[in-house]
Amino acid sequence: MGEKFKVLPSQPSHNNLFLNRVAILGVGFIGASLALALKTHRLCGEISGFGRRESNLIRAQERGIIDSGSLDLIEAISDADLIVFAMPVGVFLETAAMMRGALKEGAVVTDVGSIKGTFVYEMEELLSPGAFFIGAHPIAGSEKSGIDTADAYLFSGNRCIITPTERSSKDALDIISTLWKTLGARIETMTPEEHDNVFGAVSHLPHIIAYEIVNTVEDINGIYLRYAGQGFKDLTRIALSSPELWRDICIANRVNLLSDLDIFIARLERVKGHLLASDARSLEEEFRRASSLRDGLGQN
Amino acid sequence: MGEKFKVLPSQPSHNNLFLNRVAILGVGFIGASLALALKTHRLCGEISGFGRRESNLIRAQERGIIDSGSLDLIEAISDADLIVFAMPVGVFLETAAMMRGALKEGAVVTDVGSIKGTFVYEMEELLSPGAFFIGAHPIAGSEKSGIDTADAYLFSGNRCIITPTERSSKDALDIISTLWKTLGARIETMTPEEHDNVFGAVSHLPHIIAYEIVNTVEDINGIYLRYAGQGFKDLTRIALSSPELWRDICIANRVNLLSDLDIFIARLERVKGHLLASDARSLEEEFRRASSLRDGLGQN
Repeated sequence: MGEKFKVLPSQPSHNNLFLNRVAILGVGFIGASLALALKTHRLCGEISGFGRRESNLIRAQERGIIDSGSLDLIEAISDADLIVFAMPVGVFLETAAMMRGALKEGAVVTDVGSIKGTFVYEMEELLSPGAFFIGAHPIAGSEKSGIDTADAYLFSGNRCIITPTERSSKDALDIISTLWKTLGARIETMTPEEHDNVFGAVSHLPHIIAYEIVNTVEDINGIYLRYAGQGFKDLTRIALSSPELWRDICIANRVNLLSDLDIFIARLERVKGHLLASDARSLEEEFRRASSLRDGLGQN
Repeated sequence: MGEKFKVLPSQPSHNNLFLNRVAILGVGFIGASLALALKTHRLCGEISGFGRRESNLIRAQERGIIDSGSLDLIEAISDADLIVFAMPVGVFLETAAMMRGALKEGAVVTDVGSIKGTFVYEMEELLSPGAFFIGAHPIAGSEKSGIDTADAYLFSGNRCIITPTERSSKDALDIISTLWKTLGARIETMTPEEHDNVFGAVSHLPHIIAYEIVNTVEDINGIYLRYAGQGFKDLTRIALSSPELWRDICIANRVNLLSDLDIFIARLERVKGHLLASDARSLEEEFRRASSLRDGLGQN
């Protein structure tokens, strides 16, 4: 990858990664947390931020999250060794298409998005030759938004899924793996397809459910939500997540989600059967299985 | 109600309630928390506990949660001015039937259950004449169980729904209202039917959903649950609740739940339609409505 990444091969590489210039595209909660994490771990020199709202970029700069901000994509990525897509996935491809001629030779491009699938192959295709795309998905709370709650240690101790393909550059993959390891994440690699199967089930479907149970209670009676207790608030916390972001993710993963929704609806129909029959034993068995599985994830 | 309740009418009654003897039937998380709260607020003399497991009663006594414990219902309620049903709702009626001849004249009987409906009328009928039933539902986390996490201030600042009927004794209602007010709860009265409509939507349906999303992920792939992040854990925290308790609640409220489930499933079918059509705008509208409603409940 050349001298840009000062990886000294004689040392464990995750102690020696240094990126002169990083561009964060989308300075929201995750983008800002990553910027802070990179600075805290001294993984980079300068960080430039790209975004749609100047006020946010100015605020991010004032708080030392980024060193410079720009509404101009080409300016933001200029001379960057690493470019991180931290914007809603719906604008990935058009953004990548706009930047391709302006990328530094050998630049590594990555993302922090919750969806991989065909995007990874399309990004790879759009950016090559000259730059290298490696998909990444740090598992971190997404219901927060904005830079006010950005956290340099957000990724520490949490999983980060990396989704290389057969075409992935080994050097670029090393850099992304090393980066996340250095930030304290537990790396796991999957194919983009595996990733979307897994996170369709444990993340995307749950978001749809959280949004729709809120809508359902409002449908039942417009004043009932005021009686929601802690359990309901926990259940629906992820419904605070960005509608725009999750719209894109769900549309992108719609094939898996359609199948997952059918499985979920079939389960609910089964519960309806137990209720209709006042079949307490079957209902308890359903609940007991779920409770025991949930218990395996720990209290919090 | 006689001298048993030392309510001095010249003072605000909620400062002057004192019950000589209280029986807690079911010394679990809620029962134990109520016992601690009654002691902390000096609302009673002695507390007896009734339960199925001697070891739990001994532990509760050792920790000063109850003053005496008994596996014998009649012994536990002997001479009690207030009897609190804090056991699974499925055993309410048989327990009430067993105790009716042994109740102190004028005793007040109440509960802390999540379901009211016909139970309230049946309890009222079973216990009269001689004793008075007033239904109550303190809104407090139910996914915890056991006395280890019992909390004297669990009810403070939270709602407590009281469900009097046309037959309710005014004195008994006063005692129960005063009790919960003294513990810091925000009292609200509803009919038993209103209560079950409201909490079917904001509590019982959400429990079914939490249990069934866990089962769904396990159905999709037995290894996927290990990838569950904080959002999934929040969403499914109430699936840690007692399967036995929630089986009883759901069966008892099955008429409301069947209708609520249909409304929820119709919402999910609508989402499927948006996904099939890749209709990003409609999907975003759904999510945005939910997100804004959820935001109205506050972050936590």
